[in-house]
Amino acid sequence: MKARIHITLKKGVLDPQGKAIAKALSHLGFVGVEEVRQGKYIEIDLAGSDTQTARAGLDAMCAQLLANTVIENYSIELDA
Amino acid sequence: MKARIHITLKKGVLDPQGKAIAKALSHLGFVGVEEVRQGKYIEIDLAGSDTQTARAGLDAMCAQLLANTVIENYSIELDA
Repeated sequence: MKARIHITLKKGVLDPQGKAIAKALSHLGFVGVEEVRQGKYIEIDLAGSDTQTARAGLDAMCAQLLANTVIENYSIELDA
Repeated sequence: MKARIHITLKKGVLDPQGKAIAKALSHLGFVGVEEVRQGKYIEIDLAGSDTQTARAGLDAMCAQLLANTVIENYSIELDA
């Protein structure tokens, strides 16, 4: 089973990396870039086929290790 | 217009960060994790409403700045 996890900064949390990208794009001559936010994308291959167990496990992984839930949100997509 | 960009390592390129995550998860007691690959996720707010221009611009941004196309793939999703 394959899981795709997106970890993004919560709204209102400053994103210096995103700001740096926006500035670099503008220096390169790209116009019309209003805001850039950078997050993380993690793909996990899991053994087993029980979607419910997998989702519970992934939720615990995000809460315990992958995301800093004080400042980050995460979302989990599961492919069977 | 909002663009979501995923940047992932190409198949066959070693991913030490993913390996570290997999090891950390196993140390935390999570079983069944077979492989972890970490990528980047970038959200860009763009001015204008022409999808075709936006996509061309985003493609250039990825090729010139956001992705290292020697070892990384990128994919672009556009919301109107």
